[in-house]
Amino acid sequence: MPAILLNLPPACDPAEPVLLAISGGRDSVALLHLLRDAGFAHLILCHLNHGLRGKESIDDAAFVRRLAKKLGLKCEIETEDVAALAEKSRLSTETAAREARHAFLLRMAEKYDVWVVLLAHHAEDQAETILGNLCRGTGLAGLAGMRVVQRLESGLHLVRPLLHVRRSEIDAYLKSKRCKYREDSSNTSPKYRRNRLRHEALPLLNDICVRDVVPQMLRLGMLAEQDDDALQRLALDFLRVDGRVLEDRSLLVSPELLALHPAVSSRVFALWLREVWGLPGIDYEVIDAALGMLAADGPAKTNLPEGKHLRRKAKRLWVE
Amino acid sequence: MPAILLNLPPACDPAEPVLLAISGGRDSVALLHLLRDAGFAHLILCHLNHGLRGKESIDDAAFVRRLAKKLGLKCEIETEDVAALAEKSRLSTETAAREARHAFLLRMAEKYDVWVVLLAHHAEDQAETILGNLCRGTGLAGLAGMRVVQRLESGLHLVRPLLHVRRSEIDAYLKSKRCKYREDSSNTSPKYRRNRLRHEALPLLNDICVRDVVPQMLRLGMLAEQDDDALQRLALDFLRVDGRVLEDRSLLVSPELLALHPAVSSRVFALWLREVWGLPGIDYEVIDAALGMLAADGPAKTNLPEGKHLRRKAKRLWVE
Repeated sequence: MPAILLNLPPACDPAEPVLLAISGGRDSVALLHLLRDAGFAHLILCHLNHGLRGKESIDDAAFVRRLAKKLGLKCEIETEDVAALAEKSRLSTETAAREARHAFLLRMAEKYDVWVVLLAHHAEDQAETILGNLCRGTGLAGLAGMRVVQRLESGLHLVRPLLHVRRSEIDAYLKSKRCKYREDSSNTSPKYRRNRLRHEALPLLNDICVRDVVPQMLRLGMLAEQDDDALQRLALDFLRVDGRVLEDRSLLVSPELLALHPAVSSRVFALWLREVWGLPGIDYEVIDAALGMLAADGPAKTNLPEGKHLRRKAKRLWVE
Repeated sequence: MPAILLNLPPACDPAEPVLLAISGGRDSVALLHLLRDAGFAHLILCHLNHGLRGKESIDDAAFVRRLAKKLGLKCEIETEDVAALAEKSRLSTETAAREARHAFLLRMAEKYDVWVVLLAHHAEDQAETILGNLCRGTGLAGLAGMRVVQRLESGLHLVRPLLHVRRSEIDAYLKSKRCKYREDSSNTSPKYRRNRLRHEALPLLNDICVRDVVPQMLRLGMLAEQDDDALQRLALDFLRVDGRVLEDRSLLVSPELLALHPAVSSRVFALWLREVWGLPGIDYEVIDAALGMLAADGPAKTNLPEGKHLRRKAKRLWVE
């Protein structure tokens, strides 16, 4: 069996402490053992009990605690009532669970002053993300899927060293090492969109296309990330030139702005509204409307989220 | 019922003759009537009998001939044994049929000296194309799907004025106009990849995502086309500067080439190998290998398709 190579950024030093998000399931347990194989000596296991599967959830937490003890590793376990959280915040269980995990990991980062969290997402997870984003009507950024290194606004860095590794490779590794892990019954539940993409949509597409579609989707994801990065840089470079964004945050409608390719000017608007004005909810409709204001006979005013407006007067655009 | 607006490029003048590819099925019959509504008076109906459905195929051709006669339009019908063609050229039936249609349409373009062909592809066809290309591991260009205007190497222009129109809108139009058309039994056959994407994959994704995924995929396709166009232009602009491609077609390894973002340099290599050297089969593996030769310690030689090689010596790259 070929060894699994972890894709770790240079900043991940085995001699330094790192947080490992661990459910007790096959993927995170495999990542734990692979990290130990790679010499990581100061792992801090972080387990959030989502309280969604009763005794099964409690047993998962106990399994992680025993595993940490056996390996002589630090272990942090907290419990969150994700179902109540989802109901209260009107989010899907999946979204509420992700938010609860991020909040928990942030608390652990602050407690230990360790700002790198390792996650066990693998190639099939990535393909599901890309297919799901395609169905949601994402642009290139969404098609790129999850990033190997993702910096959250909180300063936390999520690192996914298994993103290129197939689930079957993880299985083979666990088997060869005779590692124990917990089966998560919710992984097969058709209640979750992600599970249905994995268990129904991907196999159907494999069958229709008479090929393994996962590597194809992953390659597309990498190309989309690269293309999006190139265009984002052009937009950033444009905004960084003195005099394009004025002191009062307004955007100058210069010949240079008007000459940009729409693939770039749409990103200039998105960056300007999100970063300079700090506006949330800037989607394609908003960007399209903003671009429309650049036309000679375009409107002088466009609606933005939260009751705000984008206005143009002569050679200036600003938010009110 | 809102009227269907045809998306016709300015070059499509209703007063001029144009070719209409017509199977006799619902989509192309609807396009015929919509074009007549829009004032197109000199349509030339082009029907290729693929010989795949015996009497049904013969009846389709007869239906098209009668329709043309009734409407006082020119009509061209030819027969091709697509099954034999597919076997001989080892292509799938779908690919052989497309090639046979293009060859037939090119003959018609030459006969009438009319270089615009209208095709009846609609929004669902486009979503199938995008999903199918995702599973094939395409880059951005493939994700863009079919283009409204596609120029073939032969000089023929394929124009798709219904690409934004939903199949349900086409159905409603045909019903309201009481138009007759032929049902193509092969449209429901699971033998064809395209049909399975339409009848199995898209409905499953709609169900999993609890939304109509077709408009989402179409928007992604438009964004991908726009982004790809911006990056292709950067690559073309790069190659057009004097001295970057030398007299002997070699590419100068200049500081400017080395400074390009890989999203652009990969397209520079693809354009240089395809257009300057006329090489077919330039896929991602080839481009990746070519990019690898730019590194200080990169190889001096890389394999290309058809037994050719890409070589580097000092500051020049060329094909041998």
